[in-house]
Amino acid sequence: MPELRQDPVTGRWVIISTDRQKRPNDFVFERAAAIATEACPFCPGHEGLTPPEVMAYRNGSAPNAPGWDVRVVPNKFPALQVEGQFDRSGEGMFDRMNGIGAHEVIIETPHHERAFPQMSEPEIERVLWAYRERMLDLKRDFRLRYILVFKNQGAAAGATLEHTHSQLIALPIVPDFVRDEIVGARRHFAQKERCVYCDIISQELGAGIRVVDENPDVVAIAPYAPRVAFETWLLPRRHGARFEEAPRHEYESLARALKSVLQRMNRALETPPYNLVLHTSPFSEDVTDVYHWHMEVMPRLTRVAGFEWGTGFYINPTSPEEAARVLRNVRL
Amino acid sequence: MPELRQDPVTGRWVIISTDRQKRPNDFVFERAAAIATEACPFCPGHEGLTPPEVMAYRNGSAPNAPGWDVRVVPNKFPALQVEGQFDRSGEGMFDRMNGIGAHEVIIETPHHERAFPQMSEPEIERVLWAYRERMLDLKRDFRLRYILVFKNQGAAAGATLEHTHSQLIALPIVPDFVRDEIVGARRHFAQKERCVYCDIISQELGAGIRVVDENPDVVAIAPYAPRVAFETWLLPRRHGARFEEAPRHEYESLARALKSVLQRMNRALETPPYNLVLHTSPFSEDVTDVYHWHMEVMPRLTRVAGFEWGTGFYINPTSPEEAARVLRNVRL
Repeated sequence: MPELRQDPVTGRWVIISTDRQKRPNDFVFERAAAIATEACPFCPGHEGLTPPEVMAYRNGSAPNAPGWDVRVVPNKFPALQVEGQFDRSGEGMFDRMNGIGAHEVIIETPHHERAFPQMSEPEIERVLWAYRERMLDLKRDFRLRYILVFKNQGAAAGATLEHTHSQLIALPIVPDFVRDEIVGARRHFAQKERCVYCDIISQELGAGIRVVDENPDVVAIAPYAPRVAFETWLLPRRHGARFEEAPRHEYESLARALKSVLQRMNRALETPPYNLVLHTSPFSEDVTDVYHWHMEVMPRLTRVAGFEWGTGFYINPTSPEEAARVLRNVRL
Repeated sequence: MPELRQDPVTGRWVIISTDRQKRPNDFVFERAAAIATEACPFCPGHEGLTPPEVMAYRNGSAPNAPGWDVRVVPNKFPALQVEGQFDRSGEGMFDRMNGIGAHEVIIETPHHERAFPQMSEPEIERVLWAYRERMLDLKRDFRLRYILVFKNQGAAAGATLEHTHSQLIALPIVPDFVRDEIVGARRHFAQKERCVYCDIISQELGAGIRVVDENPDVVAIAPYAPRVAFETWLLPRRHGARFEEAPRHEYESLARALKSVLQRMNRALETPPYNLVLHTSPFSEDVTDVYHWHMEVMPRLTRVAGFEWGTGFYINPTSPEEAARVLRNVRL
């Protein structure tokens, strides 16, 4: 019997269609064509092919030259731009603002052929520190309200370059997905004086059936109402609203959990394309008590069908209990 | 300069990234491989390959035999099912209900090679009547709250069979996309005692720049804050909350507008994949004054990237003014 499940934070319903249950090797997805490293603008020696770097972790080498570990550059085709007068205006009943913001690319490693599962934990941690550093810098711009950090891995997930990288978009608005989470988290807090994510972590650790991985600081779970097969969330155990204010050991633990989860997915699902999104607090409001930063990983195992795309309403062929069991049982 | 625009109903922000402006022939999308008609379960003579029909428009021929114009059958792999006891339950802080509902396929024509743009207006109108008839039947089931009618055209839009068809999912909940529209429409009505969609139609017809097509009953516009390039909405001019209660001439006019819009897209964008979703009132509440049924067509011209998928926050490379101009200027 299929089941309808509601996300306890946002109220979003999904269909878990177990009659369509798919086993890990039932999924067919597009694989990226390999791109030659000679042409890759993210490889060392090709620094001139990107806009000048915003920051980089270097061991004494000159900017925009080889010798870096992580390199952050503006997106060559930015969705938003930093320069210009911030302007809001109306057109009758419609509202617009000009696209002030930033769009940056975090090149995670100089090694073309390595992604998170092949990188060491300290290498992944360095990428998380780069996110943090860019967030702390960009939030000084009072026009910006939110920084969206995300990663598209694989062509089917929207990646246009093979060399592993994340992106960051700084926005003068708060995106709906965070707004919805905050509204739900506030409602929960108003009723119970507790963070809804802390309550989820506590219930999931008690039940165990949706736990994918855990370490002293970070828990990885298959959420109760996942939108897609093998959706996985990584949450810090300790309550904290802002990623950029997390203590050092949480980045270390997040790097370890991230590597573990992505390795498990690679083994169980044969290196699936995925999207990773960091969910953290907006700059513009105080949600210290109610919100809880986390990461969401959404493998792209099935094509998104019409009504999912046009409506944001999902049918998921794999229950989170089954997904967690499969990922948990992978031998690393 | 890119622009951020807000949908006046839902409050959803999108980025119109004009620096990444794409011309109609810049888009590259996957084309469906043709499927031989001999193997097609939706072709006449193959009625035995589908579950027995729920309804059909026939000229005296026997059920589940050739001789039909439109045929409605249960989905062979339903996301929800009609049989069973309706049951809601909790699991700690989580909520679920069993997947009571219906999932049906509307086979729009016996002709394998024809889609809406090749069908006559009366043929398309017949499909709209089939939607209506199924909605009137299914809403008698008190457990159901909403009927989602949608269509995936082309493999990249999620269609798994080439023979043109729509789908219908009857749900015991109201999906978020309708909920968000109703919340926004109620807010507008509370302030102004007017329907927000009526106001949009009036402003768009006055401005003209986002109008794609119009006839005496139906207006097709590029919405002010479109999520994707060439997104187009079809709205009845007359206020009406429920598709299934529209007067006969509106189906006729909607069929005409639909054919025109899809023909324009086929000419301008070289037969793009698209998703079409009917937005109409839930059964369970009275939104007669505030809500306005309509159809949304979303071409699938670009791959959905990570943060759009994981966050519901969109970057659109084509402004609606440009999209409307292109579609309006197509010679039919």
